Amino acid sequence: MSETGTHDTRTQVVPVRTPSRSYNVHVGCDILHTVGPLVREAAGGDVAAVMSDSNVGPLYAQRVIGSLESSGYRTVYVEFAAGERNKRFATLVPMLEQLAQAGLSRKDVVVAVGGGVCGDMAGLAAALYQRGIQVAQVPTSLLAMVDSSVGGKTAVDLEAGKNLAGAFLQPSVVVADVTCLHTLSPALLADSCGEVIKHGVLADPTLFSRLEAHPITERGYADEELARVVAQNVAIKRNVVNADEREQGVRQTLNLGHTLGHAIEAASDYQLGHGSSVAAGLCCVTRATERLGWTEPGCAERIERVCAAHGLPTDTSVSHEDILRFATHDKKRSGQTVNLIVPLRIGKVAIRTVDMDELARIVSLGCGTR
Amino acid sequence: MSETGTHDTRTQVVPVRTPSRSYNVHVGCDILHTVGPLVREAAGGDVAAVMSDSNVGPLYAQRVIGSLESSGYRTVYVEFAAGERNKRFATLVPMLEQLAQAGLSRKDVVVAVGGGVCGDMAGLAAALYQRGIQVAQVPTSLLAMVDSSVGGKTAVDLEAGKNLAGAFLQPSVVVADVTCLHTLSPALLADSCGEVIKHGVLADPTLFSRLEAHPITERGYADEELARVVAQNVAIKRNVVNADEREQGVRQTLNLGHTLGHAIEAASDYQLGHGSSVAAGLCCVTRATERLGWTEPGCAERIERVCAAHGLPTDTSVSHEDILRFATHDKKRSGQTVNLIVPLRIGKVAIRTVDMDELARIVSLGCGTR
Repeated sequence: MSETGTHDTRTQVVPVRTPSRSYNVHVGCDILHTVGPLVREAAGGDVAAVMSDSNVGPLYAQRVIGSLESSGYRTVYVEFAAGERNKRFATLVPMLEQLAQAGLSRKDVVVAVGGGVCGDMAGLAAALYQRGIQVAQVPTSLLAMVDSSVGGKTAVDLEAGKNLAGAFLQPSVVVADVTCLHTLSPALLADSCGEVIKHGVLADPTLFSRLEAHPITERGYADEELARVVAQNVAIKRNVVNADEREQGVRQTLNLGHTLGHAIEAASDYQLGHGSSVAAGLCCVTRATERLGWTEPGCAERIERVCAAHGLPTDTSVSHEDILRFATHDKKRSGQTVNLIVPLRIGKVAIRTVDMDELARIVSLGCGTR
Repeated sequence: MSETGTHDTRTQVVPVRTPSRSYNVHVGCDILHTVGPLVREAAGGDVAAVMSDSNVGPLYAQRVIGSLESSGYRTVYVEFAAGERNKRFATLVPMLEQLAQAGLSRKDVVVAVGGGVCGDMAGLAAALYQRGIQVAQVPTSLLAMVDSSVGGKTAVDLEAGKNLAGAFLQPSVVVADVTCLHTLSPALLADSCGEVIKHGVLADPTLFSRLEAHPITERGYADEELARVVAQNVAIKRNVVNADEREQGVRQTLNLGHTLGHAIEAASDYQLGHGSSVAAGLCCVTRATERLGWTEPGCAERIERVCAAHGLPTDTSVSHEDILRFATHDKKRSGQTVNLIVPLRIGKVAIRTVDMDELARIVSLGCGTR
């Protein structure tokens, strides 16, 4: 957190520098009214196209639009039907047409207000429109705040699989108002904690201990503490992404828990949430690698406990055959091996290239064994 | 042409260096059989997805596929319906699905075999698939060879206008076989010459003089000479794009003739070819700027003569009102001014920011006056 500054007592600013763009992630309580000035300063332009979905738009779009208009923007509002199943070109293309109809130029800006799907869709719309205009991200879900608002990945799904078509576009500014999480359902809040726990295991024993002592999903969790946790997560992801914008090397470590987690998620036909799937994948892989002697003893139990405390699954009933089948169709496979992210201890991981036999052994040792 | 090497007596190699990628453009006669080894060397990977349209595919895809398979690639062939009207997401999305169904990984490569539409579509498919895989361009039209295979622009059209959604993706290698131009219709060959003439006016008095002395559209124009002209054009575009990959500054000079040309093309509802429209736009703008004293006297006449010798229009019957309307809806407009590219003399241009009144005067001085 050494590079995390503050601009008032409650708002934290995490600066992110990548080869293609530098920007700030502002994390605070009740800060939607600052979106206009922050977008003005970071992106400029004349027109702001606010994109949101049919769940989030009615709650927060007007406040963001008001702030943008007070900062001198002409605004246009583009709403799409909520839900992962709408994260497709069939939804994206009409959004692009609306940008063109509103007369957006290359200097103008898209403002994404919503969860991960909205960030992906609005980000990809901005990446494609006139071969790339600027995007500001206003994430309203915990998962979007800690995960998808940093890194610049955007995508839509194809029939053949999730996130198979997309682009990299770093945002010009990110404004994460944790007050928006009050309207997030308890189930979605819990699900998001899968990625938060993953970040702790990946890089931050202090965060992990804080989650053990005080689960985010507990009643009465203070906004200020949540803002600190979000900023801590953003900084962790920033540190990884800074080093590796296009996922050639160390950025792969963000896939901790994802090789098995994606397979568990896909095998459920995406009925199990992403964070829940990652939590289950993280527990499974750690049990296996601990048994193989790759991971410090006791890690699996600590991870299982903190996942359970956040209402997250710690294992899966998916068959080993199905897990292997989905895991090896993962788009990150490379030839006949898989780069598996292995926890060494809480706060430290390694990338280990395993062949199909080793992966089968890991699945057999870690999945359905608890 | 100082940086243009040769690897045999007939094939010229133009190296292109951009911030995101360095690659070679190979220009020669009867060199489709070299695509496999060149793609192998430049891009690697296991699977090559050859993309072509229903006109060009039956002519050349098999030879490219044979060469790729001889170089150890597994190939998949993706064909789409020919024509600018198919340059849309409705055509692109099934192409992306085919890449996924064929199991392409991030290490694999798309090989575009065709004209500008194919280069745009296959290039955008490669840019989007898994957030970007490599693309090799095998342009088979003169326009694609001299224009769209260098620069890394890819796009599809929206309802609202041409090329409004796209991405930048530099190719890994370009193989331009001028022998393919034998199957190009005389009308399309002539149309392509609009961009070739533009390049001469933009940067190369020697090329311009060569076109004056010996029009490309004359019977019996030798393949070897055509290869030299193509390599010269590639080097001109390379020199501009090298300096400015993302079209912020000097790259705008490639829009010479395009402000009025795009308007003429759009007013014809795209019935007039792009090169013909650029030729007409180039003649119109030069007549006007010569009358305004911005351009060396005599330039307009020389440009008109060389356009006419290539069977290209030198003026337009589109009304001044329509030209202005379409020109100011051009996506390159910026607020209330237009960056107009002005020929100073043959081989030298300047960027001049003009307001709407000046643009109206230029249209009035240059269009429909011959």
